[in-house]
Amino acid sequence: MPTQFDPPSGTRDFLAAEVGARERAFAVIRSVFSRYGFEPLQTPAFERLDVLLGKYGEEGDKLIFKILRRGEHEASGEADLALRYDMTVPLARVASAYGSQLPTPYKRYAMGPVWRADRPGRGRFREFVQCDLDTLGTTSVLADAEVICAVHDTLAELGVPDFRFLLNSRHVLAGLLEAFGVPGELGPGVLITLDKLDKMSAADVTAELTGRGLTSAAAGELVAAMTAPDAEERIRAALKPSEEGSAGLDEVDEVLSLVTGQIPGERIAFTPRLVRGLSYYTGPIWEVVADGVPGSISSGGRYDHLIEQLGGPDVPGTGGSLGIERILLLLPAAGPAGRAGRLDVAVTVLGREFEPRSFSLAAAARQAGLRASVYMGSSGKLGRQLKWASDQGARWALIYGRHEEEAGAVTVRDMDSGEQAAVRVAELPGYLAGQAGTAG
Amino acid sequence: MPTQFDPPSGTRDFLAAEVGARERAFAVIRSVFSRYGFEPLQTPAFERLDVLLGKYGEEGDKLIFKILRRGEHEASGEADLALRYDMTVPLARVASAYGSQLPTPYKRYAMGPVWRADRPGRGRFREFVQCDLDTLGTTSVLADAEVICAVHDTLAELGVPDFRFLLNSRHVLAGLLEAFGVPGELGPGVLITLDKLDKMSAADVTAELTGRGLTSAAAGELVAAMTAPDAEERIRAALKPSEEGSAGLDEVDEVLSLVTGQIPGERIAFTPRLVRGLSYYTGPIWEVVADGVPGSISSGGRYDHLIEQLGGPDVPGTGGSLGIERILLLLPAAGPAGRAGRLDVAVTVLGREFEPRSFSLAAAARQAGLRASVYMGSSGKLGRQLKWASDQGARWALIYGRHEEEAGAVTVRDMDSGEQAAVRVAELPGYLAGQAGTAG
Repeated sequence: MPTQFDPPSGTRDFLAAEVGARERAFAVIRSVFSRYGFEPLQTPAFERLDVLLGKYGEEGDKLIFKILRRGEHEASGEADLALRYDMTVPLARVASAYGSQLPTPYKRYAMGPVWRADRPGRGRFREFVQCDLDTLGTTSVLADAEVICAVHDTLAELGVPDFRFLLNSRHVLAGLLEAFGVPGELGPGVLITLDKLDKMSAADVTAELTGRGLTSAAAGELVAAMTAPDAEERIRAALKPSEEGSAGLDEVDEVLSLVTGQIPGERIAFTPRLVRGLSYYTGPIWEVVADGVPGSISSGGRYDHLIEQLGGPDVPGTGGSLGIERILLLLPAAGPAGRAGRLDVAVTVLGREFEPRSFSLAAAARQAGLRASVYMGSSGKLGRQLKWASDQGARWALIYGRHEEEAGAVTVRDMDSGEQAAVRVAELPGYLAGQAGTAG
Repeated sequence: MPTQFDPPSGTRDFLAAEVGARERAFAVIRSVFSRYGFEPLQTPAFERLDVLLGKYGEEGDKLIFKILRRGEHEASGEADLALRYDMTVPLARVASAYGSQLPTPYKRYAMGPVWRADRPGRGRFREFVQCDLDTLGTTSVLADAEVICAVHDTLAELGVPDFRFLLNSRHVLAGLLEAFGVPGELGPGVLITLDKLDKMSAADVTAELTGRGLTSAAAGELVAAMTAPDAEERIRAALKPSEEGSAGLDEVDEVLSLVTGQIPGERIAFTPRLVRGLSYYTGPIWEVVADGVPGSISSGGRYDHLIEQLGGPDVPGTGGSLGIERILLLLPAAGPAGRAGRLDVAVTVLGREFEPRSFSLAAAARQAGLRASVYMGSSGKLGRQLKWASDQGARWALIYGRHEEEAGAVTVRDMDSGEQAAVRVAELPGYLAGQAGTAG
């Protein structure tokens, strides 16, 4: 039941542990992308409404969060701005705005929240992080292969357990339609149906194809070729006579050859039935699937006219997107090695007169590179304060009271073993740094 | 002149170099805050409109970006959501929503964009990063001193050249009004005028005070005490008889005593004229000023009833805010030590037949921890490709053509010296790692 203190429907608050896990994953992604020479781009959370409208189809337009005009115009009920819906339309705008200032090719990644007024639920959010990497300005298949390798290395380094790339080409699909005599006007519908071969029976797919107007013979042949044990060989043979089909095969084979040695063979395969719904793809297309996850965790392809269609310059492009929110769910929890505590060093405060000393002991611990803070509650009792130190996950408690003042030493208590050592105040940073170096 | 490709008014696109500089600063801030035991909190970009409305005064309400309702309700022209205006109202909501799940005290920082429909211009933005740290749930002055030390360490570690803390207490201000016989109803106005002593002459301030209804004698005495060479001593003496004034002095002195040894004496001073406009402060208040910057670069104080006023639980709090956008302008540019290149290693592609080898050489360089990519342009000429390598800021170019194929070695060209070495392909990662370890 939502309460008045919950975040808005479809959005989330992230407390410390979640922020930590997410930021660690984001750091891995940034690091891999940077190693491939992709550079970061950050654009505003909102764009002018006209920049976004009409770019996502009628259904997409409905999901755009629109921002009301302000001041005297607010009463009009009109919007002039809208929250970012994806990272691609802002990329097209940036490519126009900064054209010659950008390197060629322009290899950029963008990672940040996007907003869609989708019906929330089952892992679907209205605010979620999207992560794209794209290369604009080159038609070289090296760029396609590089995006695929960068996504592979990212997923591997994140520790996604079992994943594999499905690889195809729009030219292969066009060649297939040609080879099996599918009339041009039926093509798009036929491809949409073929894409269901991973979740529907061959018979049902055949029926749907004839429903779309294909002859029973053509539908049967097509489905038989796609589902046979030697499907790949049969499709390759069927594509050979088609000029576009051959070109598509070459493209797929070139990608496979380039990634050899970087992506294990069992993690990438030519997948003729892969269609990718979006009509803007023009060359290689791919998806990453993972065991136990419906749909894909990453996808992409070449789109040589999209940037122009979105209002940008006429530049070829290829790229991919990581389904961050799904991927985060697949990651192994942090191992037992890392102590999840808030503090390394918790400092007791045994009376007002000891506040300055305790406060400076915390500073000394920070000088040793440790996370440290003093007790700020109202109890003067050591037991209560040690309970607080334990709640903070501290490795050490520092105790300083009358006894320590007289001895000129602070008591350092190991919170795991309960062992205590008297350490001269001036030697504390060195002592703690040494302990931190040896302790777990 | 704005063009159709510019980001919306008051917002910015950040290309790679700017993202880099900003993210490095943010990393320093996160690191210092974490060392003090502050933990991160992330809340959504938007809140329900009723959570935000009425919390920022009439003027503030006008600056809130409101989000239009969606679907069938869009035509109503009404808003139900609004973009985050600051980090404090979301903190109050979170304190209510997760009360017992949060540690006590709850020490959190929040760093991210906020949005205000302010008139843009002169370093003022409609989308800008705000960075707050706050401690909820304790009335201890240790918490106030800790926030101040954390802000100090952050500014020092960022490399802000000259900055200093102005420290005061709301109790000191109340004591001042009492000591100089200012009638209660004139108090708030008198404090606003006194705060102008840093930019207006004593005579003008005196005149404004009498304009507010203070007697000439009282106004003259007050301004004389505040501006005398021995102002601090005179104010301290005047405050002694006032119970609240004495308590305020004690509070200020306790903060000063706690930060001794952590903040150099010349970087923090009791500043009786400091008022901080916001009426919600209840204890110590402070501002950080820097040479050559009008206004403050950081500020904060204790607010023991604010969270409740904002719809949260009744918990005391103290905190501060960093004026990130101003601070970023003060930071020294990255030193000459760091090479600002996009790539460490640029790999030439001297013909289609060498693509797979060149592509795998880039992978080998990445194995050595270096940023590497292949040439993807259309020129087959070595000179053009070396020009590209140089534009990328690469330290090394890898050359692999017919000659190298025959020799079974790759040519590694040092882009600074122009020196070239032949390195066996299998030995490339080790060779590059060694060079990277020794080279600048």
